[in-house]
Amino acid sequence: MGNSFNQLLSINDLKKEDIELILQLAENMKEISQRDIKKVPTLRGKTIINLFYEPSTRTRTSFELAGKRLNADVINISVSSSSIVKGESLIDTGKTLQAMNPDVIVIRHSKSGAANLLAKNVTASVINAGDGIHEHPTQALLDLFSIKEKVKSLNGLSVCIVGDISHSRVARSDIFCFKKMGMEVKVVGPATLIPVDIEKMGVKVLYNLEEGIKDIDVIICLRIQRERLDSNFFPSIREYSKFFGINAERLKNLKKDLIIMHPGPINRGIEISPEVADGPFSIILDQVTNGVAIRMAILYLFAGK
Amino acid sequence: MGNSFNQLLSINDLKKEDIELILQLAENMKEISQRDIKKVPTLRGKTIINLFYEPSTRTRTSFELAGKRLNADVINISVSSSSIVKGESLIDTGKTLQAMNPDVIVIRHSKSGAANLLAKNVTASVINAGDGIHEHPTQALLDLFSIKEKVKSLNGLSVCIVGDISHSRVARSDIFCFKKMGMEVKVVGPATLIPVDIEKMGVKVLYNLEEGIKDIDVIICLRIQRERLDSNFFPSIREYSKFFGINAERLKNLKKDLIIMHPGPINRGIEISPEVADGPFSIILDQVTNGVAIRMAILYLFAGK
Amino acid sequence: MGNSFNQLLSINDLKKEDIELILQLAENMKEISQRDIKKVPTLRGKTIINLFYEPSTRTRTSFELAGKRLNADVINISVSSSSIVKGESLIDTGKTLQAMNPDVIVIRHSKSGAANLLAKNVTASVINAGDGIHEHPTQALLDLFSIKEKVKSLNGLSVCIVGDISHSRVARSDIFCFKKMGMEVKVVGPATLIPVDIEKMGVKVLYNLEEGIKDIDVIICLRIQRERLDSNFFPSIREYSKFFGINAERLKNLKKDLIIMHPGPINRGIEISPEVADGPFSIILDQVTNGVAIRMAILYLFAGK
Repeated sequence: MGNSFNQLLSINDLKKEDIELILQLAENMKEISQRDIKKVPTLRGKTIINLFYEPSTRTRTSFELAGKRLNADVINISVSSSSIVKGESLIDTGKTLQAMNPDVIVIRHSKSGAANLLAKNVTASVINAGDGIHEHPTQALLDLFSIKEKVKSLNGLSVCIVGDISHSRVARSDIFCFKKMGMEVKVVGPATLIPVDIEKMGVKVLYNLEEGIKDIDVIICLRIQRERLDSNFFPSIREYSKFFGINAERLKNLKKDLIIMHPGPINRGIEISPEVADGPFSIILDQVTNGVAIRMAILYLFAGK
Repeated sequence: MGNSFNQLLSINDLKKEDIELILQLAENMKEISQRDIKKVPTLRGKTIINLFYEPSTRTRTSFELAGKRLNADVINISVSSSSIVKGESLIDTGKTLQAMNPDVIVIRHSKSGAANLLAKNVTASVINAGDGIHEHPTQALLDLFSIKEKVKSLNGLSVCIVGDISHSRVARSDIFCFKKMGMEVKVVGPATLIPVDIEKMGVKVLYNLEEGIKDIDVIICLRIQRERLDSNFFPSIREYSKFFGINAERLKNLKKDLIIMHPGPINRGIEISPEVADGPFSIILDQVTNGVAIRMAILYLFAGK
Repeated sequence: MGNSFNQLLSINDLKKEDIELILQLAENMKEISQRDIKKVPTLRGKTIINLFYEPSTRTRTSFELAGKRLNADVINISVSSSSIVKGESLIDTGKTLQAMNPDVIVIRHSKSGAANLLAKNVTASVINAGDGIHEHPTQALLDLFSIKEKVKSLNGLSVCIVGDISHSRVARSDIFCFKKMGMEVKVVGPATLIPVDIEKMGVKVLYNLEEGIKDIDVIICLRIQRERLDSNFFPSIREYSKFFGINAERLKNLKKDLIIMHPGPINRGIEISPEVADGPFSIILDQVTNGVAIRMAILYLFAGK
């Protein structure tokens, strides 16, 4: 596996076979997290740095647990409590951390391209844990893994991503990932929140939710960021919810084995209603569980090189 | 021991025999912390999450050390540096964390009842590390353990808790705990800071310090929170200290084997004078040492299930 | 080695032979960080507390990694996210932490003398990781180690420290350390930033950079803190840079095996130009790598007692 697993900046760093290998490994890793003793010595003596320029309970905890369950040493650095406030550049921070011989640096950053910039300046494996509106590849992999657990075949499966496509690194990584696996992807949202030319990514664009989710296998709701509202991308939370919120009423005539997903944290009653979030179609919490498994697989492949 | 050690939300979750078992275990655990190699493999592969919505050096460090000395993986989540600021509810945060298969979630929260709410929504063992003005059961257990180390018998021992009883989770847990063990409890403080009807908890209320501590075995000073002063519960720090501060003068005619305690952090010169805090009756630092031992015992019982 | 390695508050706590022992140990420790499995069981069951009252990615991460690679349990406490905001004194915080039986407390504090104050109140080994404008001994040791790697002999080697000498704990520790090893030290900077009577430390003072670095073996650039500018110690960043910034032009007639150092984080284009920071003379990143090695050696000696 040597050379292929150097950097995970984008889903496009992975070939279809790489993704299949990661899913397969994640299955084994998932089993470890269900044991009484949730720990294997695989990454003993490896150093993983979680470099988070944006706060995130979910993703940071998921990577930290993944690293610890594989016995790696995990170091958390969060920007607000660090000297990065003194204004050191990302490049200098990266070079400094590299000088401490880490095996993997997991980076979350508010600027698109930050993970790539870091990767160019270090020899450690860089895992992009979300950079601006660019990509969040481990989220796409855990989404794929969560879908695969529920269906017979990924090929030809139809997925509808609903919400703020323009500003979603999850949507971009999901689209790259699902298309690579032969799935069909539609995106639905207010016209102001759909990127121009997104059809070039091989997806179908719809502005009407009912049309978008008709006969669909999987619906992925995206989180509505309140700062978008302030920027006037749509008139009100109420209107967004009325036209694009997923609720029980809207699911009535859909498939019986429909899958509902959300990368979290959810805004209950905005992009998804509580009865759907907690209902039988929802696999939102499976996504969290699988997130740890996927990150164990990723750390295993990228730290073990 | 299986079923009894599921959740520790209140001292009332424990029977008298449970408490006796915990004290006994804590004795063994204390010995581990005094070894040259302060580590046993007991909780290897177990995951403990410290979910702190209020800052606390003392309690968080105590639980973290307890977990690490038992070889558990400990994950710290503190609210200010996490995405909980995005407004996810405690229930959703709990369900998300649960999906990562922790064995224990230790929670500190500014709202009374937060630990109970969390416990209703997860299957992991929840340990209440202080919730609002409700309870702080591990503090009561470490207080009890610290007293027990110094006396021949707990039965009939008299304890006086001094200060802001109304807003003290420590006082509440201490009262429940000490009464359960057959001890006598008095509370003393300004009338504005003693809850109405507190006699129903089986304690004697006094508004005069000299009367309260006469012939007493143990005095527990509570921390005065400056925000109470701003809320006009008492006229001034100076006046509080004059009437309710524990100083050497006041201890003159008390028992020779008197015990002075404080949950910390102490306000020197307000609720307790420096010469008493650092004096021969004080077991304040023993309380800290015993805190680690009690939490090791608790984690052992609640993570090991 | 027993008694000598109790507290590391100042370089002056170490004899010349102690320093030589530390450098020798650090060589072995450096090799560990370059292994595939960067971990040895040496400090298993030891507790190291990183008590940081000032944020610092570099130093905190360096100590944390050093501790973890030696298998110690490392607890991070940072002031902003802790109850120290409640106003507990350093002495009480120290006594509280001591009651939890740590082996080493690493302290970073904005006040000079804080490490000494802590050391007087605990029995754990205290390592000063920078206190106000007083000292930063592990930085001096890593600087010395980094120089020693590049030269045949330390004896008689000439070092020029450039910048804000008055407010630099690095400069003070470096001077003590280098003088002890028989090196010659010059300091250069604006007159407002050179302490009166510094000649008594055995250094030569110069106010002109060209004179100071003529025929020099090692140049150490200090970080310019923007708060000094606000305090009118010098007229402008531009002027500082013009007179005291190290750039390629200034290095033209210097030794071919010149060494350029900086404790980081660097202000590119202010005290050092990018082409020098990244150029052939610079060993700035070696300093970071060696920082982990030196701290492993220090923790080994001070936690192992």
